[in-house]
Formats: sequence, C-alpha cells, structure tokens
Amino acid sequence: MSVQAIAWSASGAVRIVDQRALPEARIERDLESGEAVADAIRTLQVRGAPLIGIAAAMGLVAGTRELRGAPREAFLARVHQLAELLGAARPTAVNLRWALDRMLRVATATPGGGAAVWERLQAEATAIWEEDRAMCRRIGEAGLPLVPDGAKLLTHCNAGALATGGIGTALAPIYLAHGAGRHVEVFVDETRPVLQGARLTAWELVHAGIPCTVIADGAAGSLMRQAKVDLVIVGADRIAANGDFANKIGTYSLAVLALHHGVPFYCAAGRLIAPAEAAALNPAFDVTPARYVTAFITDRGVEHPPFRDGARR
Amino acid sequence: MSVQAIAWSASGAVRIVDQRALPEARIERDLESGEAVADAIRTLQVRGAPLIGIAAAMGLVAGTRELRGAPREAFLARVHQLAELLGAARPTAVNLRWALDRMLRVATATPGGGAAVWERLQAEATAIWEEDRAMCRRIGEAGLPLVPDGAKLLTHCNAGALATGGIGTALAPIYLAHGAGRHVEVFVDETRPVLQGARLTAWELVHAGIPCTVIADGAAGSLMRQAKVDLVIVGADRIAANGDFANKIGTYSLAVLALHHGVPFYCAAGRLIAPAEAAALNPAFDVTPARYVTAFITDRGVEHPPFRDGARR
Repeated sequence: MSVQAIAWSASGAVRIVDQRALPEARIERDLESGEAVADAIRTLQVRGAPLIGIAAAMGLVAGTRELRGAPREAFLARVHQLAELLGAARPTAVNLRWALDRMLRVATATPGGGAAVWERLQAEATAIWEEDRAMCRRIGEAGLPLVPDGAKLLTHCNAGALATGGIGTALAPIYLAHGAGRHVEVFVDETRPVLQGARLTAWELVHAGIPCTVIADGAAGSLMRQAKVDLVIVGADRIAANGDFANKIGTYSLAVLALHHGVPFYCAAGRLIAPAEAAALNPAFDVTPARYVTAFITDRGVEHPPFRDGARR
Repeated sequence: MSVQAIAWSASGAVRIVDQRALPEARIERDLESGEAVADAIRTLQVRGAPLIGIAAAMGLVAGTRELRGAPREAFLARVHQLAELLGAARPTAVNLRWALDRMLRVATATPGGGAAVWERLQAEATAIWEEDRAMCRRIGEAGLPLVPDGAKLLTHCNAGALATGGIGTALAPIYLAHGAGRHVEVFVDETRPVLQGARLTAWELVHAGIPCTVIADGAAGSLMRQAKVDLVIVGADRIAANGDFANKIGTYSLAVLALHHGVPFYCAAGRLIAPAEAAALNPAFDVTPARYVTAFITDRGVEHPPFRDGARR
C-alpha cells in the first residue's frame, strides 16, 4: 500500500506527512490555519506539483473554518487574503496557482454568506484532491502494460504518492504492477542536491514493500550500459504543448542516456500544460525536449510521438 | 599555485594533507610509521591512484628508518612485511601494487646491510614521487593547447594535485593554462557518493585562485545542452590497452552526454595500463569505452583514435 500524503483531520485541519523528517521519522502534522499550510509549502514539508495544489486548496478551507459565521464580504475578503498568502509560498508552482484560482472562482460564484461559501469551498477542495487521486489511478492503469513481470525500472526525484493526493504519477504504474502480483525492481536516483529520490521515493517504495535500490545519479549510465534498466519513468512539473517538459535537474541527462542505450523513457503526468520557459530559468529543474520521450503516460492513456499542440490536456 | 599533497618531513616522516578534513580544515600530518601510512590509505586520508603509490613507497622508507642498523636479512624481512601491510590497505589500487613491487625489486637487488638498502629505498621512493611530478607536468603541457583563453571546462571526481605528487592529471592542463594567464572556468561535478569533486577539486582550485562552480552530477547534461561546457577532462584509474578506461562512477554518463552534445571529452593520465575488468566490478567505478574518448592527454602528448594496444605505455 502506498502512503497517503494528505487528508482532512477529524476537526477539519489539513493532515500532512512532514516530508522534511523522512526517512528518519514519519511525522504527521495537523495544519490548523492557512498560515500553517503556507509555511508547510514554503519549508517543503509538502512538495510535489500536484500535492502543493491540493494542500493550498485545503488550506484555504481549514483557514476559514472559524469565519463561517461571518457575512459574505468579510468572508470573501479573508479568502482572497489567504489565497494571496498561499500563492506566494511557492510562486513558481503552476499547480498551486491553478488550484487557488479555481477555489477563488468558486467562492465568487457561490451565493450566500460565509457558511454557504465555506461549504462550497470545502467540497471544491475535496474534489480537487479526489480528481488528483483518480488521475493518478488512471495514469497507473495507462502505464501498467509497460511494466511487465520482472521489469527493472529507473526513476528520478519523487513523483510518487508523496507528491500527489493519490498513488503518484511516475510511480503509479509501478504500484499497480506490484499490486497485480508482478515482481518489479526500482532503481532510484538519489537526486542531488535535495535527495528527494533517496529520502522520499525510496521510503515510500520500501513502505509499500517494493524492492528498490538507491543509486548515485552518475551511476544511471553505467547501469543502462550493463542492461540493468528496462525502462525509465519520470514525472513532470510542466509540459509544454510541443511535448518538451520541465522536471527536476538530472532528468534531461537521463533522457539522453536512455536514448543512447535504447532504453524506453516515459514521462508520466496529468493535466499540466504550460510554456516551459519559466521553469528553465530555475536551476533546480531542467527541460527535456520531446524528441527524447518515448511516450507520455497520462490519465487519458499512453501517448506516443508525434506530440502535437494540446495533445495532453 | 597548486597544493602539495605529499612530501618528506624534516625528520623523514611522510607529510600528507589529511583529505578527510577538507575543505573545512587543512590538516597536515606527519606519518612516522608504515602502519600509519597504511592506515592513512585505508581511511582515505590520502587517495588518488598516483598519490597512493607514492605514499606507499615513502611509507616503506619512513617505516624502516629505525632499522637502518639491522643486518640485511632482518631489514629485508621487515621491508617485505611492511609492503604486505601497505599493499593490503587498498587491494584494488594498481598503482599501489606497482610502486611496492618496484621498491621490493630495488631492495632485493641492492647489496649490503640495512643502511645501504634503506638509502637506496629512500632514493627510489623519491624518484617515484619526482617521476610522478614530472609526468603531471608533461600531461599539463600536452593538454595546454586544448585549453584556450576563455575555456569552460567540466571535470569529475578529483584528478588534481590532491591525487598525485604534482599538479594532477585532469587538472594539470588547467593549472598550466591559468599559470599562462588564460582565463579558465571549471564546472566541478560534486561526484556522489563520496563528493571528491565538491570537497577536493573545488578546494584545490579555489586554493589556486581558479574560478570554479560545483554542480550536481545530474546537471552536466543540461549545462552541455546550454553550450556552457567547451570540453570535459577527467582522469583515469586504469586504462586498458584498447583505450577503454575505468574511473569514478559517473564518468561513463559524462562521456555519453559529451558525445551526444558534440563536446570534446578528454582523459588525462600517465603510465597506467591494465585490463579493466577488475575495476568494473567495483561499484565505485565505471568503465568508459574508448569510442567515447576524443583523445587521451598523456605525458607523451595527446593521442587521438584509433587507440591501439600499447599506445599509452
């Protein structure tokens, strides 16, 4: 079973696994206020593009629980204030902005006082979370045929349950293959400089009982040369309409190495589409041109080249 | 000026820079006994293929200073005993074995008692060191034309002054280019898992006043794609007669990435030739096939393909 990275607490707070403490300790925190959620995003207690969006939406709800009795204008003013605070917690995260904009649209469109608007926001945040869970599952189902019994996979960074509301993106096909009784082995790039692979991906795979081995990022080429890698699956922070995608630094090197060794290279992701230029300016990420991608594993199925504008909406 | 990694102390001990303490502290240690030198090799206080060989030869001398008054047989018995101890400190190091065998041959061939043999061993260890210094310099001179003013280089692990008795192998052309007044910039792979690049190469370049930037190993491909790397220079632990060479894990990935991006990829090394199979079994190393090598920068000049048996002796 994969770990559950986010949930509502019984009292309506946002319950998260503090990802800074992993893998040494599993600490669950109940974030009671919007400020606490913004702080958790800022300090990487929660990370991963989809999870950040869900956390922000839920934080908007948790942070306005006390104001349910307020009149409409006062309630909406607080919602907008909190949304601004949450959006600033990680300004480069497209999903965060997307989720907050969706929440703000719903708030504005819902008639009535604080109580009515809050109820609607609560339902919307839950919907955002559940849509993400369902999307992870569909990505997993689309990618499942690519992960046969005995498959040896390589992944980079963390695009797993700890990055989403569900079973992850890149790891989703792996979880489903394991659940279907197939033997799979996963090589995990430790993913310098922040070590998301060694700290998070390895932890959640071990937690789920899936055999995995952490490797130095530089070792991937040597493993491929020794034919120890059947396929590579990574996630994406942003996918441009032409199929170029931004992801954690090191993804591009992996793509070139996979092409050179004839190893299929898959990018698993859901709804995100955006121009990739902005992310390319962030040294924590690199851009992998579409020509290196064997296929995208999406919630709508596996898409092979040619990638055309809007193919992955 | 490059750092001096090894020297005789005034009293005849082996003076080393303790590389475990870098870059936080520069600690020089005088190793008074053969056991202390073996321990320093075992615990990576000294590392780098050439430097280990020099240290072992000097350790054999320092460790038999007290026995100079002993009769021939007793002295030789101690020499063999120490050589065994030193050889076992890092059994996979070809240079270590080579240096010790050379010392043992000299000991056996020199007539006379302990004093005479010790004098000869002292001269031989000094010769091994000085030959290495001269070789580093010749490698630097051979590689100097490949490092024009304004060159941006990338290197991996530490094949610098801290790995040799002189100015290094991969870094030798860089030191000479800098000394000739050329502006050079060096990207340094941090080199996981042991971080020799971040800890040692960056330290010795900063010490010499050469601009350098440490990068995550996974970032090399992205830098090459952005045309920020003019050439790659790495060292080698062992070079097979056909030009395949073993070096720190991650070297092979760099070679593939360099080929893919049309970036020249040079291996700088001296006398070592050995079958590379053994090193390939050590997960700290990988083997880079000769077909990825633009040229070898050796003490005899720059050698381009085809690499034939014995070309780099």
